[in-house]
Amino acid sequence: MRVAGRAYRTIWLAADGETVEIIDQTRLPHEFVVARLATLADAVRAIRDMQVRGAPLIGAAAAYGVALALREDPSDRGLDRAVAHLAETRPTAVNLHWALGAMRAALAGVAPPQRCAAALAQAAAIADEDVAINRAIGEHGLALIAAARKGAGPVNILTHCNAGWLATVDWGTALAPVYRAHDAGIAVHVWVDETRPRNQGAALTAWELAQHGVPHTLVVDNAGGHLMRRGLVDLCLVGTDRTAANGDVANKIGTYLKALAAHDNHVPFYVALPSPTIDWTLDDGDAIPIERRDPREVTHIAGAAADGTRVEVRLAPEGSPAANYAFDVTPARLVTALVTERGVCPASRDGLLGLFPERRRRGAA
Amino acid sequence: MRVAGRAYRTIWLAADGETVEIIDQTRLPHEFVVARLATLADAVRAIRDMQVRGAPLIGAAAAYGVALALREDPSDRGLDRAVAHLAETRPTAVNLHWALGAMRAALAGVAPPQRCAAALAQAAAIADEDVAINRAIGEHGLALIAAARKGAGPVNILTHCNAGWLATVDWGTALAPVYRAHDAGIAVHVWVDETRPRNQGAALTAWELAQHGVPHTLVVDNAGGHLMRRGLVDLCLVGTDRTAANGDVANKIGTYLKALAAHDNHVPFYVALPSPTIDWTLDDGDAIPIERRDPREVTHIAGAAADGTRVEVRLAPEGSPAANYAFDVTPARLVTALVTERGVCPASRDGLLGLFPERRRRGAA
Repeated sequence: MRVAGRAYRTIWLAADGETVEIIDQTRLPHEFVVARLATLADAVRAIRDMQVRGAPLIGAAAAYGVALALREDPSDRGLDRAVAHLAETRPTAVNLHWALGAMRAALAGVAPPQRCAAALAQAAAIADEDVAINRAIGEHGLALIAAARKGAGPVNILTHCNAGWLATVDWGTALAPVYRAHDAGIAVHVWVDETRPRNQGAALTAWELAQHGVPHTLVVDNAGGHLMRRGLVDLCLVGTDRTAANGDVANKIGTYLKALAAHDNHVPFYVALPSPTIDWTLDDGDAIPIERRDPREVTHIAGAAADGTRVEVRLAPEGSPAANYAFDVTPARLVTALVTERGVCPASRDGLLGLFPERRRRGAA
Repeated sequence: MRVAGRAYRTIWLAADGETVEIIDQTRLPHEFVVARLATLADAVRAIRDMQVRGAPLIGAAAAYGVALALREDPSDRGLDRAVAHLAETRPTAVNLHWALGAMRAALAGVAPPQRCAAALAQAAAIADEDVAINRAIGEHGLALIAAARKGAGPVNILTHCNAGWLATVDWGTALAPVYRAHDAGIAVHVWVDETRPRNQGAALTAWELAQHGVPHTLVVDNAGGHLMRRGLVDLCLVGTDRTAANGDVANKIGTYLKALAAHDNHVPFYVALPSPTIDWTLDDGDAIPIERRDPREVTHIAGAAADGTRVEVRLAPEGSPAANYAFDVTPARLVTALVTERGVCPASRDGLLGLFPERRRRGAA
């Protein structure tokens, strides 16, 4: 997508052919900064500290991280160490493990001297595949938005967190249909949940929608229920970090509350996901590990002071204990449909297997 | 309640017998500042800018505001002007109108020279009545908390916004039962919703619970659904700014989402209210006016910088549009029971009339 008119992905091989560049998402929306990853440690830090985030982008970043590690140490032990370190960075998104598995598969039988080059090629393939998947999600989701048109006004879409192009390599998952609809001339307006505690909605979704010229309004996470009761939301569209085989979805904390409100007000609640987000080994969402992060993300927040400098302020009383659960699980019964690269399906085992029949034949492994 | 060991109310007649003092709640939790109100304009500003807030405290502050106005101008015109200005400050809490009506009734037939003294006496009576009401709410709610005990751990209570003693003259509404339970030796633990955008949970509820020594944990507003799914909440207890005659409750934006989650997880959802919060003229909650406040409360936030100074930072991209709805309506069907000064009742017209039978005889006026 475009930033100030110039096309960007969120991660790419640098011009030197050896290092990787990313958009440092901890600096948005106040600064647009490209950061360089040269080592495994850089990649681990970038994922853990959320310079890159979003399930699909975490997968791509982990893939590039393996390549960077193999430049430092192309031995079997180096590969094992890289996979182990990267796998520990974030517990909830399954794309991370999917990408590391794909890297291992691609590197099986490759001799150490060729491993780094092979890994870079595979990481690039994973990134390209993510872009193609998201473009297809956009196409399928566009039809849902088009169907929600009524009267003269825009289609009002509520989204939570950031499942836009910044959460992926390009296009986004939940926002891909929004961009496709906007580009196709369908009037859309997005209610952007700020998404505490890390404010990915306020910092990233509002920013990328503004860059692309999509009309939007920022609201606090508390507002969505009221908006739906007042008929101001035509559909909800969110991403997911891990989808169980029965259609339960783990996504940013607070998603479940919006799904409840959508259900209570007969507002369609759609979840967009690339198939690497599906964890076929999990019968339901209860087994999805929920990351707990530093309570300081709740008690403190950073923003731009009047002079433009970044300042962190404390919101809570000094010493107040806080808990920071990063995700919640929305049960499939509250999800109107899943939007994947192969099409739209009910949030159920049968629905998913209808689109991915090869998983039926191969069982749940 | 106590602040650093000294007993305080949130509003009181100053030692000079002429002006009114309040705890300036916009300075908490970082500074404890007592502010002086000397004029009608001071009182209007204090309510509008939320130096005092919370439906019961707004009522008491408006009552004192009438008295201050009558010192400046005790004429009929002065009284009309005071009531009109104060009535415009906040649209959702009905206690404001109840208190202004009570002041008018008390001043009817009082000659201008005696009006200020009569108004001060009536304002003090309203404040004292609020304290007595909340003490009774605490007693009735205590039984609900005691009944929720199971096993060895504390009773886990989730609350939204601040319905503690800072929202009233003393004791609080939703938190009165919590304080009574804690003081009675029942182990309690409170999940404190931070309550964006103005963070009354993080700034006020966490602060007053800490002052009283009640165990609590601060969470973002997004977390409550997850906590309830995981069995970490035994009951929810919130306040309300206006309760319709059928038991629908308007409360701080986001309350409805927590009520949905409680319903979905079979967690009792209690709403505590003094009877002046009941609007007998409204058949249901849909007619309750919902205040819209400055979008800047969403895009910017203030906190304590590392050196302790108060700094406001911008969270959203520059120029991002935002909307700021301050309240939502929770339908009575999601409310397990209402807790009033006369006891606990179903959230329904019959439930309320059972406790307030004089309203049945007098009709809906």
